[in-house]
Amino acid sequence: MRAMSDAARFPWSPPRLDAAALAGAAARQAVLTRPPGSLGMLEPLALQLAALQGRVLPVARPAAALLFAADHPVTRHRVSAYPAEVTAAMLANFAAGGAAASVLARLHRIPLRVIDVGVARAAGGVARAAGGAASGPHAGAEVMRRPVADSEAGDLLHTDAMLPEVYAAALRTGADESAALGSGLRVLLLGEMGIGNSTAAAAVYAALLGGDPGEYAGPGTGVHGEALAHKREVLRGAVERVRRAHPGLQDDPHRALQTLGGREIAAIAGAMAEAIARGVAVLVDGFIVGAAALALVRLDPAWRAGMIFAHRSAEPAHARVLAAIGAVPLLDLGMRLGETSGALTAFPLVEAACALHNEMATFAEAGVPDREDAGV
Amino acid sequence: MRAMSDAARFPWSPPRLDAAALAGAAARQAVLTRPPGSLGMLEPLALQLAALQGRVLPVARPAAALLFAADHPVTRHRVSAYPAEVTAAMLANFAAGGAAASVLARLHRIPLRVIDVGVARAAGGVARAAGGAASGPHAGAEVMRRPVADSEAGDLLHTDAMLPEVYAAALRTGADESAALGSGLRVLLLGEMGIGNSTAAAAVYAALLGGDPGEYAGPGTGVHGEALAHKREVLRGAVERVRRAHPGLQDDPHRALQTLGGREIAAIAGAMAEAIARGVAVLVDGFIVGAAALALVRLDPAWRAGMIFAHRSAEPAHARVLAAIGAVPLLDLGMRLGETSGALTAFPLVEAACALHNEMATFAEAGVPDREDAGV
Repeated sequence: MRAMSDAARFPWSPPRLDAAALAGAAARQAVLTRPPGSLGMLEPLALQLAALQGRVLPVARPAAALLFAADHPVTRHRVSAYPAEVTAAMLANFAAGGAAASVLARLHRIPLRVIDVGVARAAGGVARAAGGAASGPHAGAEVMRRPVADSEAGDLLHTDAMLPEVYAAALRTGADESAALGSGLRVLLLGEMGIGNSTAAAAVYAALLGGDPGEYAGPGTGVHGEALAHKREVLRGAVERVRRAHPGLQDDPHRALQTLGGREIAAIAGAMAEAIARGVAVLVDGFIVGAAALALVRLDPAWRAGMIFAHRSAEPAHARVLAAIGAVPLLDLGMRLGETSGALTAFPLVEAACALHNEMATFAEAGVPDREDAGV
Repeated sequence: MRAMSDAARFPWSPPRLDAAALAGAAARQAVLTRPPGSLGMLEPLALQLAALQGRVLPVARPAAALLFAADHPVTRHRVSAYPAEVTAAMLANFAAGGAAASVLARLHRIPLRVIDVGVARAAGGVARAAGGAASGPHAGAEVMRRPVADSEAGDLLHTDAMLPEVYAAALRTGADESAALGSGLRVLLLGEMGIGNSTAAAAVYAALLGGDPGEYAGPGTGVHGEALAHKREVLRGAVERVRRAHPGLQDDPHRALQTLGGREIAAIAGAMAEAIARGVAVLVDGFIVGAAALALVRLDPAWRAGMIFAHRSAEPAHARVLAAIGAVPLLDLGMRLGETSGALTAFPLVEAACALHNEMATFAEAGVPDREDAGV
């Protein structure tokens, strides 16, 4: 970590917002044929996109989804209801088009690309599934292997999630994937897959927000009772270990991600920074992706302007995290799957916000009388 | 009212639910490749549709939207921030494709049909707009004139919203429009337009739920302060007048709609009953359409099985109304426009629920290991 400066590892800057586009968009909203404010959150959402994209008429497409996957050695401490092998098996399921994220990406015509940044699996497993029954341009997802480390280390309890150089490589990998989507992209949906990663995300939250690490633990894929109590203990052990080693942890987002996160969470942070820096809005999925979002906001609150929060997860600590970011999510459906599923479910709301803003008639165009006091 | 029995006026019966389809759908959800419950409200939504449609694999399309519009003589008591002429002008805006509902219907490829059940306007106004700049199959909306009464009466404060025979005609008109959409329809979105109708809806709520009618008043299109206090007084006067005339009002949904509703609200009740009786799910828009939904649920709670509540309106009393129905809406975006805009915004969530339920792979199909305790 000491060998590499923050600037070398994290060269991205928060977006410059376009005040003229924002003013133009706000002026347009003032005269659209509906009572001001009556479209609720969809109105400020269009203004946020206008300022970020530098367009009076913001757009939601082209959009694309990136899903980063990794194993988590913390699973050996039995923090999940599912075996760690599920992560590898789900890569094949994404490719074949049978996972929730595949289904939603197909429904909303959003290309989904899955990047394996470190999942142990038999060679050929994913390729086989990708050539299976479901085919066609949007049948499944493209699954790419870009492992940033094959290490078995990083159980959180005894060893850091990543070595500093692995963390830097994960950031870079995520950023490269984001940049590869091209300069025309307008909205990037970010998601993850990794059995064990609700523990990693909770650890990052505890590191950055303080308090008892056990309070950030939740059911994840479905642990309850004694198993949840055990997950709390693992979290306390991991976070307290790192707090002792790094007393300034709460103010060091990079350290929190490197020591307690996961390779997919770090890659997501890189993808997010690269996208937002270029004026691409990021639709933040849920509890796990939120850890990368919180890290960026803690680096500089200006990153917040590029983030749209898709939903409030059923993971209990998510409400606390969203409040810490000052984020009001679009959806609150009790979802807790990850995989980009929350972002994909929320995407039509972003599209609706843009369509309403861009296509509604003004009072003058439609010849509709305005408020009785509007001209006074 | 006495001249016509309830059965003659309201011949529809609540839907018969298909227990076998429901059981099949639930069995399917138990083995889809995600932790059970992790798709939140989207899971029971698919089950609701399965039972209603009699299909293990329920579908969200074909879908269609009906928007009923009417004038409200209560506007002469200055209960709205906008002049009553806005209702007629908005019919032209729907037709031309510039209203929020037109934009969202086009975005989601849902045919939108607007039925004027009593809006005073110059002949030809809508036709002109419909032939205007926006054209093509989904450019605007088809606007039909089916007035059920041209009366200037029905100011709520001194005279009932409708004569009993007008109420019966409005129910019938709504049902006819619903039936005309054909037997293949799967989801019906219902909306309204009518300056003054948040007062009418609030009056119906007060009639059926009891308590101070003033508590059901809200900003509507945007009245605040003294204007809102005045709206409360109009509501109290109207509801208390009808309570005195009909002591059994709280248990008589038909009487509540006839005396305090509006022609578009009555038409919506008819359209809703006709659709649900045939197993078509109704996506309930917001505060105004909710009055028709509450009336049906009060007639028979079994109607509830056919309703999906799109969103919680920013209209303050809506939360109380939804709680009375036991409804948890899909969205809570602070919207308060009506026009089917909430239902259209929520429609992709219904579509997502069906797609996930129908297209996700099972654990066995995908070769994904299930929970470590799932086979035990």
